[in-house]
Amino acid sequence: MRNGDPDNKSLSGPSWEENIRRVVPYVPGEQPPVKDNIIKLNTNEFPYPPGPGVQKALQSLDADKLRLYPHPDAEPLSSAIADSLGVGRDQVFTGVGSDDVLSIAFLTFFNSGAPVLFPDITYSFYEVWADVYRIPFEKVPLDEGLHIVKEDYFRENGGIVIANPNAPTGISESEDISWFEDIVRNNPSSVVIFDEAYVDFGGCSALPLVNKYDNVLVVRTFSKSRAFAGMRIGFGVGSEKLIRYMKDVKFSINSYTMNRAAIELGLSVLSDEDYFRKTVARVVSTRERTKKELESLGFETTDSKTNFIFCRHKTVPAARLYEELRQEGIYVRYFNRPRIDNYMRITVGTDEEMERLCQFLGSIL
Amino acid sequence: MRNGDPDNKSLSGPSWEENIRRVVPYVPGEQPPVKDNIIKLNTNEFPYPPGPGVQKALQSLDADKLRLYPHPDAEPLSSAIADSLGVGRDQVFTGVGSDDVLSIAFLTFFNSGAPVLFPDITYSFYEVWADVYRIPFEKVPLDEGLHIVKEDYFRENGGIVIANPNAPTGISESEDISWFEDIVRNNPSSVVIFDEAYVDFGGCSALPLVNKYDNVLVVRTFSKSRAFAGMRIGFGVGSEKLIRYMKDVKFSINSYTMNRAAIELGLSVLSDEDYFRKTVARVVSTRERTKKELESLGFETTDSKTNFIFCRHKTVPAARLYEELRQEGIYVRYFNRPRIDNYMRITVGTDEEMERLCQFLGSIL
Repeated sequence: MRNGDPDNKSLSGPSWEENIRRVVPYVPGEQPPVKDNIIKLNTNEFPYPPGPGVQKALQSLDADKLRLYPHPDAEPLSSAIADSLGVGRDQVFTGVGSDDVLSIAFLTFFNSGAPVLFPDITYSFYEVWADVYRIPFEKVPLDEGLHIVKEDYFRENGGIVIANPNAPTGISESEDISWFEDIVRNNPSSVVIFDEAYVDFGGCSALPLVNKYDNVLVVRTFSKSRAFAGMRIGFGVGSEKLIRYMKDVKFSINSYTMNRAAIELGLSVLSDEDYFRKTVARVVSTRERTKKELESLGFETTDSKTNFIFCRHKTVPAARLYEELRQEGIYVRYFNRPRIDNYMRITVGTDEEMERLCQFLGSIL
Repeated sequence: MRNGDPDNKSLSGPSWEENIRRVVPYVPGEQPPVKDNIIKLNTNEFPYPPGPGVQKALQSLDADKLRLYPHPDAEPLSSAIADSLGVGRDQVFTGVGSDDVLSIAFLTFFNSGAPVLFPDITYSFYEVWADVYRIPFEKVPLDEGLHIVKEDYFRENGGIVIANPNAPTGISESEDISWFEDIVRNNPSSVVIFDEAYVDFGGCSALPLVNKYDNVLVVRTFSKSRAFAGMRIGFGVGSEKLIRYMKDVKFSINSYTMNRAAIELGLSVLSDEDYFRKTVARVVSTRERTKKELESLGFETTDSKTNFIFCRHKTVPAARLYEELRQEGIYVRYFNRPRIDNYMRITVGTDEEMERLCQFLGSIL
């Protein structure tokens, strides 16, 4: 059925398929079948439900209003995010998950022709966005200990993207903001993005830099620590000027992206700081306890400041463990990529889930 | 505050601002202040609420599940859309409003270097997407009667976009699908997009062509006839191959865009065909009655097959009428652009709203 009409043969020139933007399709993490016994530790979702205010906010959503477009700038959610961080409301860009924010930032800022720099081991989407938007890039190797060497980013480039804490290593680079500031100070000609999807679970934030440098974007999400992956809310914080450029591009692609439900429910999530702090603390405590158990089973772990554990076993290959866990209905993430192909990334679930994980690993090791 | 650190001067090369993707910022339609007496006829929203099933679906949404990512392909909504149209489920691309679908289609298909063709008077976003994605384009003039001349599209091009019914003219080009098929048959080397945002209010759909030609994309939305602008749901229908290419690009930008609320509530909207048909028929009937009233006041109108009326007054300039209506709290759309700068685009509201509009116009004319 290629423009299959027979009358059409005389016109057949090059096919429309020659002009496709061809990409290496990104494959999202496996969504296992919904069964009772499944333990899903493969996409870094939060193990506890969003705060009790969300169910109330759902009840009070007015279906009649859904006939009207939402606020194009996701108000009043954007202002609430700004207030929660102590920045100006024109310093916040709200998007459909942090992927939306990062993707728009790539499109807006990385147009110099010089390569964008990010670590060789990091969030795999950076490479995918560069590919789809035809942005040249260079992957800068982490050192042997899986750390970022900041001096590697003191050279000509078209932009810099640093995930901190990094994924899938879980490592936070420094407790001292000067580590981050050094990268910014050495890059006045580039936009420097700090992807802080996991920062609520530990690690130092670069947020204070947005008021000192106008070329810094800090990106966060409601999908991890706010237990809200299902509603797709992310945001970026930067100088007013930087955010304005992003909004100009965003409004040129889709004026209304955050739907009314996301805006209203997002507000309720943000208003319950107490619940947020308590549940995040619980995940951190489960993480530390699970790490010790894994170490007692012969695993080496990184110093994760996230809601996942990055680990390898001293003798048993990760690919084998991953497969055996999967057979048992325990889904973790395995990356068949250079340097990390012997690691597993295990999302921190509830205590009960992590207990079952450790018991099973204990039984097969 | 341009990378303001004083230590930094010796490093100052070109500014990061030199590499911004600069766009002419698109300005969405005015969102008037929420006041009781406002009549909002400027963004083509549906005047009646979504069907009663939506409030029930809201009540039954499970807040606890919102911690989990949604289905990346918006299932089961995508399959329900496919079923409702009698096409295969791999023939449907679901997006955050039809703007999302169209924007991804531009990015995926329009890469040949030859200009993309669309009418000079049509949905203004086509030009904006071409601009942001750096796609060459040519605007093909409508004829004197504001009709599309199909033969103008029988020449080399990098893609074709036809809104039918067209906006803001409201005109549907033909009741005969061969009009649309002629354009497709003459363009085997391009993807031909039919933007049918308004087709439920009248006009001929090109949908049957997606099973005959593999280079046709038909785009629709829940925002107009389905009373669901606030939830951002649009979709595209094409050959499996065409849709696969779009999904590859989409999954390379953002794997999860339709949130759980949109998927669930979208399902409930789609299931109430009876309510849909009744309320659409009511809008059509209000449109026809209002047109007659406007004509009796000295307006000329096009033969709109949409949920808006496109009209000009025989003697009074549109800019003046627009401004006087606005002062009265009645918001309509006025485009200060060549050829149509004496028209107003008036969304069809409730009978009561249209009555107040006509009464006011009668009082000032």
